[in-house]
Amino acid sequence: MKLPSLEKPTLLIDPLRVKNNIQRMAEKARRQNVRFRPHFKTHQSAHIGEWFREQGVSAITVSSVDMAVYFANAGWQDITIAFPVNWRQVEKLRSLAQSIRLGALVESLDSAQWLEQNLEATVEVWIEIDEGSGRSGIAWDDPQTVLRLAEYIHKSTHHHLVGLLTHSGRIYASGSVEQITQVYSQTVQRMNQVRDFLIAQKLASLEVSIGDTPGCSLVSDLGKVDEIRPGNFVFYDAQQLRLSSCQPGDIGVVLACPVVAKYPARSEVVIYGGAIHLSKDTVLEQGKPVYGLVASPTEAGWGAPVPGGAVVRLSQEHGVAHLLEPFFSQVSVGDMLLIIPAHVCLSVSALSEYHTLEGEIITAFHG
Amino acid sequence: MKLPSLEKPTLLIDPLRVKNNIQRMAEKARRQNVRFRPHFKTHQSAHIGEWFREQGVSAITVSSVDMAVYFANAGWQDITIAFPVNWRQVEKLRSLAQSIRLGALVESLDSAQWLEQNLEATVEVWIEIDEGSGRSGIAWDDPQTVLRLAEYIHKSTHHHLVGLLTHSGRIYASGSVEQITQVYSQTVQRMNQVRDFLIAQKLASLEVSIGDTPGCSLVSDLGKVDEIRPGNFVFYDAQQLRLSSCQPGDIGVVLACPVVAKYPARSEVVIYGGAIHLSKDTVLEQGKPVYGLVASPTEAGWGAPVPGGAVVRLSQEHGVAHLLEPFFSQVSVGDMLLIIPAHVCLSVSALSEYHTLEGEIITAFHG
Repeated sequence: MKLPSLEKPTLLIDPLRVKNNIQRMAEKARRQNVRFRPHFKTHQSAHIGEWFREQGVSAITVSSVDMAVYFANAGWQDITIAFPVNWRQVEKLRSLAQSIRLGALVESLDSAQWLEQNLEATVEVWIEIDEGSGRSGIAWDDPQTVLRLAEYIHKSTHHHLVGLLTHSGRIYASGSVEQITQVYSQTVQRMNQVRDFLIAQKLASLEVSIGDTPGCSLVSDLGKVDEIRPGNFVFYDAQQLRLSSCQPGDIGVVLACPVVAKYPARSEVVIYGGAIHLSKDTVLEQGKPVYGLVASPTEAGWGAPVPGGAVVRLSQEHGVAHLLEPFFSQVSVGDMLLIIPAHVCLSVSALSEYHTLEGEIITAFHG
Repeated sequence: MKLPSLEKPTLLIDPLRVKNNIQRMAEKARRQNVRFRPHFKTHQSAHIGEWFREQGVSAITVSSVDMAVYFANAGWQDITIAFPVNWRQVEKLRSLAQSIRLGALVESLDSAQWLEQNLEATVEVWIEIDEGSGRSGIAWDDPQTVLRLAEYIHKSTHHHLVGLLTHSGRIYASGSVEQITQVYSQTVQRMNQVRDFLIAQKLASLEVSIGDTPGCSLVSDLGKVDEIRPGNFVFYDAQQLRLSSCQPGDIGVVLACPVVAKYPARSEVVIYGGAIHLSKDTVLEQGKPVYGLVASPTEAGWGAPVPGGAVVRLSQEHGVAHLLEPFFSQVSVGDMLLIIPAHVCLSVSALSEYHTLEGEIITAFHG
């Protein structure tokens, strides 16, 4: 692809695809009467945030206190920070809690006590549940510990216990659509099991919030949940393609990288686009981990991945892409190669801006 | 560690250790009459660059055109861009070639012709040789192709053929110090084999430039080379520790991360410090890939890694560190955990600034 105005690794965005992705998920949630609180950690952009507002979205999720500040400054009034409370950012949390409806995650009595002692403005507290992924949260099969924490928050002078929240990270290990829908159902069932236990102990009206792109994209029935928080669906990426969470035509963002060298003997090109642009997250392609897939260039932008085209090695600034014929012969030094990143969120974090094919630049938060 | 002024993932630097690392490598090169052209892609900071100048360094290496512009603006007059020429940055290359002594890498006749046609100001051209790593460069065992390229550049009106350059990426796969010194010797030997071939064809006075931290740190005799370009040695990291390129007391930079949750049942803590801070490069720890080692906190900063302490899982903002007793019990939510990154260059790129323990902030290039 020629793209003459670009000189280095650049995120290209297709606004139409992105808006379609947003609309599809917003409608799914609306139809099922579930609150749609999209995770903004994927796009991290106030400008793209407006495309969500056009679909009626008013509540969002972020993954850091600073990102909450950025979106609060962009006019968002209802923000959940889906990350354990970071005690070191107490001043920013105080200021946020005073100015917006702030949701916080708590997963221990220590953190709940800290919140009670350090924040007077009301915070909407979610208890984080570990539904089996082993990252953060109280284990779903330890409802007694959840109960003790819930009772403590319930008695809080300042704060309000909203419900139970989880992220099903383990869904990414699924090998098939059936497995994804199975893990999704199991997660919903485990969350409701904890909720039912708490309600039986007289803690009424607790919400359940879940959220991951594979589950939310693939299940037709979102089940007994009050809120979903998917994020990646806004762009999708190679990991989501592999999981069948999306179709190639849904990929909203690619990384355009200058081709700087060509090696016919090994059917590889070297691109300016390395670990600092793609990170080193991988996706399995024919059983081997690769850092991204090579998209076919089209008139309107990009199409499906070219057969066998993938970024197979990365160093700091270098990427090595393996390409098959006839595509290999069509690529010249000086062209831009379009990469569907294994994990697009990390590329967004690294580059903090997007270009449309019309040359418009869309900026994003830089943390 | 308490570090009360820090609120989020922060690179801590120990200037004394860094200056020692610089001095040691500078002296080694000086003693052996080899030009020391350190790679600045690791620290990426004009401020830290001055510590090299204090050791008599006047020639440097960078990995991108923009990084060259940044250091040229900081007063560096002799800069090699150790990356295949990116045709799309012609304007910046022209401006650099006019204002400083600019070194460029060429690995094909196409690129040499492009350079001849597009840059009139003199460029010091290095032919990039692939010494066996399979990233970029002409294969060392294909001297005829090198010869054709060398003859073309030699006849150039504008440019000057300086010599042959390589990066021995494969040295990182070494399993022992013996193997590192072996790969180093082999690389030097292969480069000289190509040089001797060219000299026999009447191309006189070609230099050889090599450079990787494990080799340059571990060999006592740098061998028949004219220039070394190591970069990582300025800080070292967990990958270098594993390779024995350095001692724990040489680690010049760590990533301090807030502890946000603690899980005694699995002997793990969750830190605010994820893939966007550490990247996802790994190092093998007891046979398993980990993203960083946990350094022991000391009065003066940090000491050796704590036994068994490592970052075992990463998502966008979350890190999960596994810790053994008695260290696990000494860590509390709200503390800072000190991480020796698997690959420090990527953390520097992600964060673009350092803090000293005295609270001074050192800024770096942001690409």
